[in-house]
Amino acid sequence: MGKAIPSRNENYSEWYNELVKAANLAENSAVRGCMVIKPYGFSIWEKMQRALDDMFKETGHENAYFPLFIPKSFLSKEANHVEGFAKECAVVTHYRLKNDPNGGGVIVDPDAKLEEELIIRPTSETLIWSTYKNWIQSYRDLPLLVNQWANVVRWEMRTRIFLRTAEFLWQEGHTAHATANEAMAETRQMLEIYARFAEEWMAMPVIKGYKTANERFAGAEETLCIEAMMQDGKALQAGTSHFLGQNFAKAFDVKFQTKEGGLEHVWGTSWGVSTRLMGALIMAHSDDAGLVLPPKLAPIQVVIVPIYRSDEQLAQISEKVQEIVAALRKKGISVKYDNSDANKPGWKFAEYELRGVPVRLAMGGRDLENGTIELARRDTKTKETVEVAGIAERIEALLDEIQQNIYQKALDLREANTHRVDSYDAFKQILDDKGGFILAHWDGTPETEERIKEETKATIRCIPYNAPQENGQCILTGKPSTQRVLFARAY
Amino acid sequence: MGKAIPSRNENYSEWYNELVKAANLAENSAVRGCMVIKPYGFSIWEKMQRALDDMFKETGHENAYFPLFIPKSFLSKEANHVEGFAKECAVVTHYRLKNDPNGGGVIVDPDAKLEEELIIRPTSETLIWSTYKNWIQSYRDLPLLVNQWANVVRWEMRTRIFLRTAEFLWQEGHTAHATANEAMAETRQMLEIYARFAEEWMAMPVIKGYKTANERFAGAEETLCIEAMMQDGKALQAGTSHFLGQNFAKAFDVKFQTKEGGLEHVWGTSWGVSTRLMGALIMAHSDDAGLVLPPKLAPIQVVIVPIYRSDEQLAQISEKVQEIVAALRKKGISVKYDNSDANKPGWKFAEYELRGVPVRLAMGGRDLENGTIELARRDTKTKETVEVAGIAERIEALLDEIQQNIYQKALDLREANTHRVDSYDAFKQILDDKGGFILAHWDGTPETEERIKEETKATIRCIPYNAPQENGQCILTGKPSTQRVLFARAY
Repeated sequence: MGKAIPSRNENYSEWYNELVKAANLAENSAVRGCMVIKPYGFSIWEKMQRALDDMFKETGHENAYFPLFIPKSFLSKEANHVEGFAKECAVVTHYRLKNDPNGGGVIVDPDAKLEEELIIRPTSETLIWSTYKNWIQSYRDLPLLVNQWANVVRWEMRTRIFLRTAEFLWQEGHTAHATANEAMAETRQMLEIYARFAEEWMAMPVIKGYKTANERFAGAEETLCIEAMMQDGKALQAGTSHFLGQNFAKAFDVKFQTKEGGLEHVWGTSWGVSTRLMGALIMAHSDDAGLVLPPKLAPIQVVIVPIYRSDEQLAQISEKVQEIVAALRKKGISVKYDNSDANKPGWKFAEYELRGVPVRLAMGGRDLENGTIELARRDTKTKETVEVAGIAERIEALLDEIQQNIYQKALDLREANTHRVDSYDAFKQILDDKGGFILAHWDGTPETEERIKEETKATIRCIPYNAPQENGQCILTGKPSTQRVLFARAY
Repeated sequence: MGKAIPSRNENYSEWYNELVKAANLAENSAVRGCMVIKPYGFSIWEKMQRALDDMFKETGHENAYFPLFIPKSFLSKEANHVEGFAKECAVVTHYRLKNDPNGGGVIVDPDAKLEEELIIRPTSETLIWSTYKNWIQSYRDLPLLVNQWANVVRWEMRTRIFLRTAEFLWQEGHTAHATANEAMAETRQMLEIYARFAEEWMAMPVIKGYKTANERFAGAEETLCIEAMMQDGKALQAGTSHFLGQNFAKAFDVKFQTKEGGLEHVWGTSWGVSTRLMGALIMAHSDDAGLVLPPKLAPIQVVIVPIYRSDEQLAQISEKVQEIVAALRKKGISVKYDNSDANKPGWKFAEYELRGVPVRLAMGGRDLENGTIELARRDTKTKETVEVAGIAERIEALLDEIQQNIYQKALDLREANTHRVDSYDAFKQILDDKGGFILAHWDGTPETEERIKEETKATIRCIPYNAPQENGQCILTGKPSTQRVLFARAY
């Protein structure tokens, strides 16, 4: 503690960077663009993983593991795919080091050059579809519903902890189906799961929609996404689900015998979320005092701090606290009793605020006499003195309330910062003055999209699901449009 | 199913390879030496991970994540370490592909050469200790108890699925302590955890001991290990725990302020187990009919197969089976009811035998009338007809019995194949005739160890914990020795 974090108003970007550091979530490593996820940050990621993994398994998916390396020639088999990823590939060319005979220390052994270079996976469609070729022969082998949790590498030039790193952790689902309809249903189902996770676990409202052709995944026929608003009004893409059509099946010759005895290429999907969600979680809810974590993802949900004048009093408080700890644990609530004497209560209060612990309890001598305890909420920063009797039930309900409140706050922010705009001037003005989401008409062409992006740095985040049909004119070209799309500047 | 597996006697090595394939555990990928872990195999690995992770957390360790890449210069900072790993390093030299201007397809962009090559981690001591330098200032920061689950790459020339692959999955614990004693206690504690996991979860008895200097981890002062016997009498190293002394602290200048105000280098440990344990699990227990899984690691603990003559009868059986399924699930037992009509009961029996499901229940028309069910054990291949009443309690107890029986069988095998030998002739004869473990006297020199290895392919697996002191003569040199060490040919 004691590290000063700039306020959000002062410098949102620095606030984020310093908060990530101060709350011990992650840090930059000695390797350009690669982060170290520290234990506290990783424990939040583990909670995310567990929740998502359960949802994947409930919908019939199984985990597997595919190699880190992709032969260069594989990447080239799907034309759009290689076009999309070639510029950011880490390439393994050698497999041995040796001592420099000229005394220059350890060098790469020139005799150990690979015949074919290996790419560190930026995503695994190519290797997985080359494998599926052997796994799929008949309609009986379908659908094939596989996910993997893995690290991937995209050699980004501008990196930012959690949001855009050269190496990141993610899950990538890869499924194969007998029909286009079934694959499209899977694509939608997985987007629904991501949306549910974002809203119910991360307490982060999202807008579901279709990416424009420009923004589609390299090799996909359709990309669905969820978009969330950060506190600075910028958008963050929090998950994508791709309908791959038969593109990878054709590139890797994956066919199946149909029920009717024909031979057809299978239909594919892929979908993923990554440690980028950690960045979203931080940016969506936290405040100038530190992290604000939704209770469902908080590694510590309740912290208890004793306030005492003597060892004897501490012993009495501790005895009472142990009962509370036991009652909370019985309800599956994670609780930490911080009775260390290395730090004062005030320091502890600030520390757990910084770390985003949703509920803080403090018990002093008078509380002990009165059968009370001080209860503080991280989200509202309010506190009150309550009866110890029934405290576990009260906290159980309070955690739900906090989860809901954090979600509502984020939703209110989004609604207050979403604008319907009908002219390009107003569009530019709002972007510069207030930021936020803009719903505007677009003529549907990549050229218009590109020009708006160049001129304003705003991109089409998505064509929202079920956007109401409404006649209008493109804000840039005045050409006719039948629905509004979602524009924003984005992370 | 239907793939013929050779018997263990016929060809143990082929039996293993074919079993891994037939039981859908894993397969070789298109990338040399890298495997694909298939969903069924991965679900066993997930159970292993969960059990180990729980044990790590119970002993105060936290998970974190460190980069995949290690700058070449880092690897060189600890002399023994680089010596040990330089020959098997995958090296990233470039970060971009491009289209060949001469039309040769996608090539590595020569302009995108890294200033310093990056090594794919073969293990992470160097990067982690370079990070710890910033995490550790004072005795208050110690002990630092961190683990990571990750993929690592060692460019092995001869690979074998699960046992030795170029890329493998593992966990690596890296801890820092204020004193040598505390670090050594941690080293021992983690070996105990590995031994407990091997014996209680994998049902695989292990011998705990010290590696000889020759066989120590590159950079360690002491390496502890657990060694298990496979069914062909060969040894398999199933886990190692290293006392690193101050080697990495010195290489990366990691010092801490002591309670007394001094400044000292910290003491380190590292410890790991990998997907190699999957190979050990298969080789330790399985038989000519397929996998034999200890119930604690079986993804499906009980399978139920209906035997019916009509849809009506199937409906009646299914109704009864659903009660059994519910009763088993209530006890936390994982159960699968396979009522698919694509395959006959006989095919299903063979399939679940191949997949190592510990208990199989089959219910037919007569069972339905009599209130009975057929219960078959995978480990003993025995079956009996039992009352449906009380079946969940019976199976709960049976799963414990099977777990224990599999362990006992492996222990009996090991005891029957462990020999005390006092001459080099007898040593060579036993290795060639029967194989197994040999307890013999050794003069304590690396030269003798090396010569025995060259002449017999047997290595010193370990100097067992608490080996009884016993005067004897080295089997090779006749020089005096005070205890027997464990020799074997090994995987």
